[in-house]
Amino acid sequence: MGSAIDVKATFRDIYHRLKAELLDDPAFDFTDESRQWIDRMLDYNVPGGKLNRGLSVIDSYKLLKAGVEVTEDEIFLGCALGWCIEWLQAYFLVLDDIMDNSHTRRGQLCWFRVPKVGLIAVNDGIILRNHIPRILKQHFKGKPYYVDLLDLFNEVEFQTASGQMLDLITTHEGEKDLSKYTLPVYRRIVQYKTAYYSFYLPVACALLMSGENLDNFVDVKNILVDMGTYFQVQDDFLDCFGDPEFIGKIGTDIEDYKCSWLVVQALERADESQKKLLSENYGKADSKCVAKVKALYKDLNLEGVFADYESKSYEKLISSIEAQPSKAVQDVLKSFLHKIYKRQK
Amino acid sequence: MGSAIDVKATFRDIYHRLKAELLDDPAFDFTDESRQWIDRMLDYNVPGGKLNRGLSVIDSYKLLKAGVEVTEDEIFLGCALGWCIEWLQAYFLVLDDIMDNSHTRRGQLCWFRVPKVGLIAVNDGIILRNHIPRILKQHFKGKPYYVDLLDLFNEVEFQTASGQMLDLITTHEGEKDLSKYTLPVYRRIVQYKTAYYSFYLPVACALLMSGENLDNFVDVKNILVDMGTYFQVQDDFLDCFGDPEFIGKIGTDIEDYKCSWLVVQALERADESQKKLLSENYGKADSKCVAKVKALYKDLNLEGVFADYESKSYEKLISSIEAQPSKAVQDVLKSFLHKIYKRQK
Repeated sequence: MGSAIDVKATFRDIYHRLKAELLDDPAFDFTDESRQWIDRMLDYNVPGGKLNRGLSVIDSYKLLKAGVEVTEDEIFLGCALGWCIEWLQAYFLVLDDIMDNSHTRRGQLCWFRVPKVGLIAVNDGIILRNHIPRILKQHFKGKPYYVDLLDLFNEVEFQTASGQMLDLITTHEGEKDLSKYTLPVYRRIVQYKTAYYSFYLPVACALLMSGENLDNFVDVKNILVDMGTYFQVQDDFLDCFGDPEFIGKIGTDIEDYKCSWLVVQALERADESQKKLLSENYGKADSKCVAKVKALYKDLNLEGVFADYESKSYEKLISSIEAQPSKAVQDVLKSFLHKIYKRQK
Repeated sequence: MGSAIDVKATFRDIYHRLKAELLDDPAFDFTDESRQWIDRMLDYNVPGGKLNRGLSVIDSYKLLKAGVEVTEDEIFLGCALGWCIEWLQAYFLVLDDIMDNSHTRRGQLCWFRVPKVGLIAVNDGIILRNHIPRILKQHFKGKPYYVDLLDLFNEVEFQTASGQMLDLITTHEGEKDLSKYTLPVYRRIVQYKTAYYSFYLPVACALLMSGENLDNFVDVKNILVDMGTYFQVQDDFLDCFGDPEFIGKIGTDIEDYKCSWLVVQALERADESQKKLLSENYGKADSKCVAKVKALYKDLNLEGVFADYESKSYEKLISSIEAQPSKAVQDVLKSFLHKIYKRQK
């Protein structure tokens, strides 16, 4: 895929153009100091991820055009929308890290832990969020789908924040009580907190750029939300059973008392004594406790349960995708699915 | 003003209607627990202020209609936009209190200090912000000015967050250094952090509802921003020289090392020994230090400087207002000015 490298390079170039525009936005009279602050804050928080979400807008758009040449202008716009998603992600991550009191992110200190930043990071998160409509206004105002883009980003952000709320009040609030961790609770958190913005949003952006009305793509939305759920289940599985060397980080979901797919599955299958073991050992930093939980996961054959879930999800997704009337839409959905199916990281 | 009471009661009723709609928003599948959380969070943070900003939308709209009867539907819409401004204010206050590590707000504990809330308040702030486009979509989608409302709220929020950044990196960051507190710095912070959303935004909402194009009201924007600056100067003056009984709180700008209009004026007028006194005593919790700063303010006759500033601002604002071609617009601007001129709280 020689052109994939070009796309990524183009995508990165466009980051610099968007940043330069934001640092010269006439709606605010920057001082040198404040311009430098934002410049550094953006470089620290926006471009350092895998960029999968952002790149998938232009990838999807090309598939939707089904072979018709994509103009340079269209590539720019698709990349700009992709960056809006990366900005949205950066905004969530900066604030989530504060709420979770996290230490590192993407291999560096969390932004709020950087010296002289501290809780100014809350406002930086807000500024990241505010950059999205600035980018949209600069490049999409006047397009027939401009208002639909604003509505889309607003709705997806609302859903993500609502999912985060659900996670916070279920996981963090009150006493540790594993009985709250059920499959419907798990699915609802994942659907809202992750799936809408990571899977639906890039495709919805590409559809709007193609002149489509999103009301006609409710099935596509549901398929993408299901794919996002499947993606998160993989994430939870790999946190415990993946190769840390390969993933690039050491999972701590057990220590962190996360509402992970694994603990939910374990609770569904555990007898009373196994439930007691979980409640006594889940959410403790002690490596002996973590080992006991992992041993229970093995006893309950959660690796087999996951393999089964993975193949069933794949079958179900493929058949939903093939029921789609448009071949181009099928291609978009399949490209997402094949990027994540049986992934090891 | 018998009808002013009615308007406030109507305005309050509409809060409950908007809240009920938000708690039943089909874009999120609420659990009972999450619905109750938002219900309580809204009641705690949104309606407890003076509501001046919110009420001024419908007040301004009525003046713009210049005697033509306002329908019940228009009153509802004007109040809904007013509540969007109150929601915006609540969002800023919840997050500002976290960043400033404040203790109380509007006579009660800051939201993040309420038991079991803590840093979930960061996400609650985000949710408050996300409610604004939900309200706008519910009640304004399809109006010819819908996209202008979205652009307006986005731009004003961006300016407010940028002003807050300026305040944070000037006031909070680095060592205490009063030489950063100059009049241009002060004016820029106030303009962006306070004036746009408190003074321009309500009038801009009323203008859009009246079918106007905001591009034709740049002068009106500038007048309102000047008025907002004047309002903040009063605020800073009253923090030190106002009657705490009457204002309902005890000012702590000196203790908090605030970039107040008073310290900026003092620095402009102080000789070397007075500057030394300021740098040794400003920003200390010790009441003896505070008393020394206040004594210096009196020595420098800042009360007289303020009285002079107040009358000059008034004259300048009145003459700008009277240069406006529309009598209705003049009335709107004068109603704002007369609400704040020589206020004691």
